[in-house]
Amino acid sequence: MNATQLFENIKRKKSFLCVGLDTDITKIPQHLLKHEDPMFEFNKIIVDATKDMTVAYKPNLAFYECMGAAGLVTLEKTVKYIRQACPDAFIIADAKRGDIGNTSKMYAKAFLENMDFDSVTVAPYMGEDSVTPFLSYPNKWVILLALTSNKGADDFQFVQENGKRLFEKVLIQSQKWATTDNMMYVVGATKAEMLSDIRQIVPNHFLLVPGVGAQGGSLSEVAKYGMNKQCGLLVNSSRAIIYADNTENFAEAARNATREVQIEMEQLLKENHLI
Amino acid sequence: MNATQLFENIKRKKSFLCVGLDTDITKIPQHLLKHEDPMFEFNKIIVDATKDMTVAYKPNLAFYECMGAAGLVTLEKTVKYIRQACPDAFIIADAKRGDIGNTSKMYAKAFLENMDFDSVTVAPYMGEDSVTPFLSYPNKWVILLALTSNKGADDFQFVQENGKRLFEKVLIQSQKWATTDNMMYVVGATKAEMLSDIRQIVPNHFLLVPGVGAQGGSLSEVAKYGMNKQCGLLVNSSRAIIYADNTENFAEAARNATREVQIEMEQLLKENHLI
Repeated sequence: MNATQLFENIKRKKSFLCVGLDTDITKIPQHLLKHEDPMFEFNKIIVDATKDMTVAYKPNLAFYECMGAAGLVTLEKTVKYIRQACPDAFIIADAKRGDIGNTSKMYAKAFLENMDFDSVTVAPYMGEDSVTPFLSYPNKWVILLALTSNKGADDFQFVQENGKRLFEKVLIQSQKWATTDNMMYVVGATKAEMLSDIRQIVPNHFLLVPGVGAQGGSLSEVAKYGMNKQCGLLVNSSRAIIYADNTENFAEAARNATREVQIEMEQLLKENHLI
Repeated sequence: MNATQLFENIKRKKSFLCVGLDTDITKIPQHLLKHEDPMFEFNKIIVDATKDMTVAYKPNLAFYECMGAAGLVTLEKTVKYIRQACPDAFIIADAKRGDIGNTSKMYAKAFLENMDFDSVTVAPYMGEDSVTPFLSYPNKWVILLALTSNKGADDFQFVQENGKRLFEKVLIQSQKWATTDNMMYVVGATKAEMLSDIRQIVPNHFLLVPGVGAQGGSLSEVAKYGMNKQCGLLVNSSRAIIYADNTENFAEAARNATREVQIEMEQLLKENHLI
């Protein structure tokens, strides 16, 4: 998928929502535990409940890895299911990987080739040769951490040299490695006011914005400072949607929570004359 | 394991070698492919060939993840095998993880609880709350990236504010989160001359030093600038040992390559009056 196709999907669905599949066996509705693979069952139902209002899905690797080999099977099945149930979905491996070249190459193979994700989140600390192996797959993307949504973001991401903060240096430097068709950046919604600074540096890139919902970020602020002429935003919500309810009504609750966000997104797309 | 126990193992084995299990199905000897789990077979033989001269083993997660769920099974079996064949080994999950708190907690569970690794390598970009969940397991360690061995290390790790470079800030800041008994740092051997600057900041911490061997770093330089009164070094070698030969003689070749490094390490420990 390229940026134009992603924008087409956003316009058609009137949504720039990414649903985060942080599927935690201890938090899913208890009645699902009777199934052979309860996490997959949960994911399937969440995907079906949200797919007409969602442009991206983002399984969070940690939640699958902590289930061992069985968790990886669940993950593989989930990606396959999304491909079939929602063929236009942009699927993100939220993995925060990054290592020396020969190792990043293996992670790229794992996620972009074997598991057929569209993209992987990558941590920039190790620099160019830790990122570029993920860029060698046509139509696949790197989503590079720039400014994250957590408290610890303040520890190192604001280290400043010659008037540029580290997250700005990451944005500047990494544009030499990739294009607006294979690189996005993670920018936390909890730092929405920073989005105008970020748009000075990367006016045309898509941004993946976590932190709306459980982490407290505001969607209208994100759109105000971050939206560009191709929308340029994928806003993620995980817990607020998938755990909206943990009874037998969880699918309906997830759908209602998604609908609420989608309506707000449709309004914001209209205000910005994108639909 | 704490730092004192690790140093005891180093003295007893006259070695501060970590063998990196970057086990690549395309590089292991062909005759192993007849086994049901060739990567595990390879790891077992490598462990047996090196265990009396090795204090640590470091499976590289990417090489297992790129084999899908079966790769995770191989990894789990490998950790169990090391525990049994070499009970004093310090086992490192070379995973370079790091995410928001609730996610890092899941990675910590995956590696330190479910899989019984002694430690995980963690990337510092997301700051304190991405690192501390890994510190909540008694006798388990975080090995935080400081100055890595790859070319891309120059991109961001040297960003300088008030005379302190980013990798130095990582060392300074992270000492507030942990002790010399649960935190080590990754410092690449290809930057050995930087070790004296690093020892100014972390005189007593253990350092995990990759980059000797295939990446070109020098062991004597590493010892010269990095050794402290508890040795304070785990020097990793992966490819130079495990792929010393790819015929049926690979175990003997790996053993000979290990012996060569161990003899040099023994000499360096003696020169520094540690044994």
